[in-house]
Amino acid sequence: MVALEPLAEKVRALNRFDMGNFVALMDGERSLGAVHEDVARELLAYPEAVAVDLGRREVRLRPGSAEERTERFAAMAAGMHEAGLVPGWRDELFAAQRGFGTEPVFLIERAAVPVFGLRGYGVHCNGLVRQPDGSHKLWVARRAKDKATYPGKLDHIVAGGQPAGIGLMENVIKECGEEAGIPPELARQCARPAGMVSYRMELPDKKQLKRDVLFCYDLELPEDFVPTAVDGEVESFELWDMDDVMHAVAHTDDFKPNVGLVLIDMFVRRGYVTPDQPGYIALVKSLRALDCA
Amino acid sequence: MVALEPLAEKVRALNRFDMGNFVALMDGERSLGAVHEDVARELLAYPEAVAVDLGRREVRLRPGSAEERTERFAAMAAGMHEAGLVPGWRDELFAAQRGFGTEPVFLIERAAVPVFGLRGYGVHCNGLVRQPDGSHKLWVARRAKDKATYPGKLDHIVAGGQPAGIGLMENVIKECGEEAGIPPELARQCARPAGMVSYRMELPDKKQLKRDVLFCYDLELPEDFVPTAVDGEVESFELWDMDDVMHAVAHTDDFKPNVGLVLIDMFVRRGYVTPDQPGYIALVKSLRALDCA
Repeated sequence: MVALEPLAEKVRALNRFDMGNFVALMDGERSLGAVHEDVARELLAYPEAVAVDLGRREVRLRPGSAEERTERFAAMAAGMHEAGLVPGWRDELFAAQRGFGTEPVFLIERAAVPVFGLRGYGVHCNGLVRQPDGSHKLWVARRAKDKATYPGKLDHIVAGGQPAGIGLMENVIKECGEEAGIPPELARQCARPAGMVSYRMELPDKKQLKRDVLFCYDLELPEDFVPTAVDGEVESFELWDMDDVMHAVAHTDDFKPNVGLVLIDMFVRRGYVTPDQPGYIALVKSLRALDCA
Repeated sequence: MVALEPLAEKVRALNRFDMGNFVALMDGERSLGAVHEDVARELLAYPEAVAVDLGRREVRLRPGSAEERTERFAAMAAGMHEAGLVPGWRDELFAAQRGFGTEPVFLIERAAVPVFGLRGYGVHCNGLVRQPDGSHKLWVARRAKDKATYPGKLDHIVAGGQPAGIGLMENVIKECGEEAGIPPELARQCARPAGMVSYRMELPDKKQLKRDVLFCYDLELPEDFVPTAVDGEVESFELWDMDDVMHAVAHTDDFKPNVGLVLIDMFVRRGYVTPDQPGYIALVKSLRALDCA
């Protein structure tokens, strides 16, 4: 059992932003995202893709088909990358959507998603092993030291962004195989959806806004199954007592931050924190201030 | 698997209110509750307890100690009961609080709680029996036909309001014994907190505002345990397949409405509904628009 205030602080750290620094990214009357005002100023160089109105604090998409807009954003993202406004490059296309499961408004290089404050979606799996008393241990992954993001941090047994065009469970099963060597039939049998969390975080040094919806899955694995790092993104897997997981989430920065959020949700759902502890209602509220669609 | 829209409609039905019909119940600068404007007008008859300012749409508690206010509210509630403004009488004192676990501002007869729009707290236990495939069946209670509220409706195996002065888990264990014949040691071992839900509902015919925070518990009971109705409030217990539970919650009014809310939260937590179903995000959001403190 840990005190709830350090957990609440981790949730707050994932929800720090000053929307006064951002202008809206609009498609007609619909808001799709948000762009830092300094970045918006640079977007004046791409009039074929967007109309920048700093007075009204808006960046408006030019009309066009999804294909046309995808082309314009590809050119814009490439130019911004060269100018240092899109740090990193993943070579992976992401769908900008009005809401989860709706038709893409355009596709865009993944690294540019938080530059435009677009909502991202992912799946996160708690790898659990049931103990005789009904409680669980958790499989903890350590990220490879050469990963571009959060090298060496602790992670879920399986987690990944949601690509367009496949189902969430399909993605879970695919990532289970790629990241932890879990055979598809075992993944299908063990993985159960368990809700969702979301967060919105300003990355001030990058002038980005990260807005993620994470679909949570509990993966209750058989006692004799041992995950194996398949794709080189994970250095090792270890089976942890939940008390140690809770302590690390609450009192260290060892876990990748958004993994902590999914774990805190799991602590609530599975009773590792209890409503008799001071601050429970505030913690649950903070977890559930869902910025999502 | 049921469609999510009928479940979402059940959640919406528990969150219908027009705050324009209500005036704030204020203790200094803090809002404690809300009183229907027609009821507020009648409260002009109790100037020793409250100051009614219909122009500012406020009912203000007179200063005083918790004991003094409890006495004033007792007199007011009794008068209101005679006048038909507090229908029913439970002979049970409830603590009006600024937030859960804080010192009572005053105590008041339970039947008057929604008349003043005070926040109520309760514990609701999902009585689960684990199946070999990891899924669960649910113990369903049928309320006695002579119960004052929701006679004959389907209910949780154990549920109850939260009295002042005892812990939530303590209350769960007590109610487990009183309502379902679950021995304390078994209750302590099986009951795990699993989060919370809340709702705010106007009862227009009664001119009341019901604002409840329900702490959810999963009670994973051994296969060979059979609950027994102890206190006469339950007619019978039956072990239901979760598909039948889901169907009844979605497509009938057989369950007591706030029980449905806790069950829908459980369907989400335990993967009986999945994020690949249309409307999942909206359903989860609607469940988590927490009006609570």
